[in-house]
Amino acid sequence: MGDRDAVGVGLIGLGTIGTGVVRVLRKNAGVIAQRLGFPLRLVRIADLDTETDRGVDLSGIRFDSDSQALIDDPEVSIVIELIGGYGAARQLTMGAIERGKHVVTANKALLALHGKEIFDAAASAGVDVAFEASVGGGIPILRSLREGLSANRIEAIHGIINGTTNFVLSEMQETGEDFEVVLKRAQDLGYAEADPSFDVDGIDAAHKLTLLVAMAFGAELTFKDIPTEGIRSLLPVDFEAAEEFGYRIKLLAIAKVHGEGKSERIEARVHPTFVPATSLLAKVEGPMNAVAVHGDAVGPTLFYGAGAGELPTASAVVGDLMEVAREVRRGSAGRVAPLSYLPESLKRKPLVPLGDLEGRAYLCLSVRDEPGVLGHVASILGENGIGIESIFQRGSSRTGEAVPIIIFTHRTREARVRAALAEIDRLPDVTAPTRLVRVEEDF
Amino acid sequence: MGDRDAVGVGLIGLGTIGTGVVRVLRKNAGVIAQRLGFPLRLVRIADLDTETDRGVDLSGIRFDSDSQALIDDPEVSIVIELIGGYGAARQLTMGAIERGKHVVTANKALLALHGKEIFDAAASAGVDVAFEASVGGGIPILRSLREGLSANRIEAIHGIINGTTNFVLSEMQETGEDFEVVLKRAQDLGYAEADPSFDVDGIDAAHKLTLLVAMAFGAELTFKDIPTEGIRSLLPVDFEAAEEFGYRIKLLAIAKVHGEGKSERIEARVHPTFVPATSLLAKVEGPMNAVAVHGDAVGPTLFYGAGAGELPTASAVVGDLMEVAREVRRGSAGRVAPLSYLPESLKRKPLVPLGDLEGRAYLCLSVRDEPGVLGHVASILGENGIGIESIFQRGSSRTGEAVPIIIFTHRTREARVRAALAEIDRLPDVTAPTRLVRVEEDF
Repeated sequence: MGDRDAVGVGLIGLGTIGTGVVRVLRKNAGVIAQRLGFPLRLVRIADLDTETDRGVDLSGIRFDSDSQALIDDPEVSIVIELIGGYGAARQLTMGAIERGKHVVTANKALLALHGKEIFDAAASAGVDVAFEASVGGGIPILRSLREGLSANRIEAIHGIINGTTNFVLSEMQETGEDFEVVLKRAQDLGYAEADPSFDVDGIDAAHKLTLLVAMAFGAELTFKDIPTEGIRSLLPVDFEAAEEFGYRIKLLAIAKVHGEGKSERIEARVHPTFVPATSLLAKVEGPMNAVAVHGDAVGPTLFYGAGAGELPTASAVVGDLMEVAREVRRGSAGRVAPLSYLPESLKRKPLVPLGDLEGRAYLCLSVRDEPGVLGHVASILGENGIGIESIFQRGSSRTGEAVPIIIFTHRTREARVRAALAEIDRLPDVTAPTRLVRVEEDF
Repeated sequence: MGDRDAVGVGLIGLGTIGTGVVRVLRKNAGVIAQRLGFPLRLVRIADLDTETDRGVDLSGIRFDSDSQALIDDPEVSIVIELIGGYGAARQLTMGAIERGKHVVTANKALLALHGKEIFDAAASAGVDVAFEASVGGGIPILRSLREGLSANRIEAIHGIINGTTNFVLSEMQETGEDFEVVLKRAQDLGYAEADPSFDVDGIDAAHKLTLLVAMAFGAELTFKDIPTEGIRSLLPVDFEAAEEFGYRIKLLAIAKVHGEGKSERIEARVHPTFVPATSLLAKVEGPMNAVAVHGDAVGPTLFYGAGAGELPTASAVVGDLMEVAREVRRGSAGRVAPLSYLPESLKRKPLVPLGDLEGRAYLCLSVRDEPGVLGHVASILGENGIGIESIFQRGSSRTGEAVPIIIFTHRTREARVRAALAEIDRLPDVTAPTRLVRVEEDF
């Protein structure tokens, strides 16, 4: 089969993932052709840095810094956008779509913030936008939501979808070290960026959750409306308590649907969570990712794999490329709605306020070890209608020293817990704001 | 959108899964239409039993026992085959394909034995045959192999793909009861058939593995060539040993590729396996299924969910139906090769003989508690070049009584273990054939 039959591909951004894409296309060209029946031809690459040797064979590929010329190139049918960010990435993605090119991207930030504009433009132009790599790296979770589980009303999603935070949390659990120490190690190992805030503050996970919520529930959310807490405030004592009481701490992206039809509301949130140590999600260690999806017909499912990294992410990008190339060949672009629901079926749906959610909570109080403190705390919880499931205080050697009190509550509305904590944190013997970590068990 | 736009569907077989399909199509008609943009219309159903009330709304659907008329019906574009078995199912599937109908099936036995004939006929007729429900029930594992992971050279598969055996093994682990006792309970609970041999002897898992091997490696295997062992011979002492040494016993379907290109060979086998208790597969309990897939780019992945049951299986069937309906609408049938590799790329590839495989082994010997027995056993293992990693003998109260000796070997070729066991089992103080269970850890 000659090159005449090939589908032409252009790649913008030859960083880690871009290099991985070239590597996978080279290494697995044989198996890719055996599956597609026609070759993919990487026609050209654009990157501002044309000097650095990436250690990958670029022979036969035009390589320069002109991304505009790339999207204009008539030999390019599919544009892979891997530069990240909102500015140039948005302009190039929209430009490619306007020129009738299909787009494959790993850019969750772009899609979380400008997805509507991009998907609407793609629908008008009759081109595909594929983005499996944007959530869960190499895990085919978006395709599974969109196609494999398409017969289901999706009821809940619980995802470990940020590898950096999962690595940090796993290490904190294992070593008992402080957040800053472990973060430094993650940075040295390449699992965390120099500026880690996107990851450790939960923003990246919230971007991804925006996409998952759209695909699961047909709900358009504004990314900024998703309650998001990162992992910076967790202390070694929290991991000791998790171990002691049979939990692991995971940064979960959680989404559920409440009600049906017109009264449908969406629960969506990103925060550190106590999950039972016996659950599959608890076993997702280091930089790995997993997404638990509960569908009304299929019941509980879980999808596990590497959430980042050169080759795992390239696996998803090239998988998308193969799918889009098939659609190009068959003239069937737009066959599947990119967000699983047809654009006209995607609706803004109200978010359930955090305070209305019910669940168990882990509380870690810092109190001076004085007689009567525990009684005060228990009374305030009781007055707010909060049942205590278990309580644990390690006494200090000296009266008056600050010690932690660990409390697990029974199921209750979060607003009650917030009200109680506001009172508790005003007690004179409470020496620091109480830490609240939510407990999730139903996945 | 009127019924004129609907894609017509016929369902053959209104048993448990067929009823689930009707239920899902009714219950989720709204969400299905929001994803497809056009309705699916279940035009007619054929089942020999037209009397039993399945507790599902069949209004507006023609329901009789004439499956031949169903595949002839011009209103039916897609035929769902859910009668199982090889005879009538084969004739109806081939008949539907000859009439230009697309087929959705859950019939792994049919595809494992007559897949080539069926897929070749479908390719000639330009129709789709979809079969996600045939492996892993509701888990979108086949679609993930075929599309999500299509950029990978798949290197290994480790699957828990039979819910009956996984339920029995989980219960034996938990209760310490004998196989027959637990099997009876599984039958009472509906997790095992009256004749359980298809499941407990590993045949069902081997059928499914035949499909997985084709899709992962492009390898055509004859189902009968896959070495297959069931779970009947496992005893409570094996589960005690698993607990003691940090393992769980799972019936695994295992497939790996050895070598590349012309020297490529396939390893495929179904048998009870010791897996590390800390692994994700060890956590797959009861009737649940999971498939671990290792791809050269993506690395380790795992797909988990219900492997059987009315609604989980219907989730996969209706998901397939939606996909095929999209292809019908877009005229893109045949877009993706059903077995992931184009028919001309599927090749017979040699199997690696079991004896050539390397791994660790669990051995459970039954010996009379006489002085010197252990020495004999150890000598024979040593003479065969087999290293002992750990050994455990619980002494009996009376000399001469049969006691179990548990041995975990170091990595070694299976042929050596077989040779050693042939000698060991001839020792006068060995009172029963030694049980060998393979240990797998690399997933």
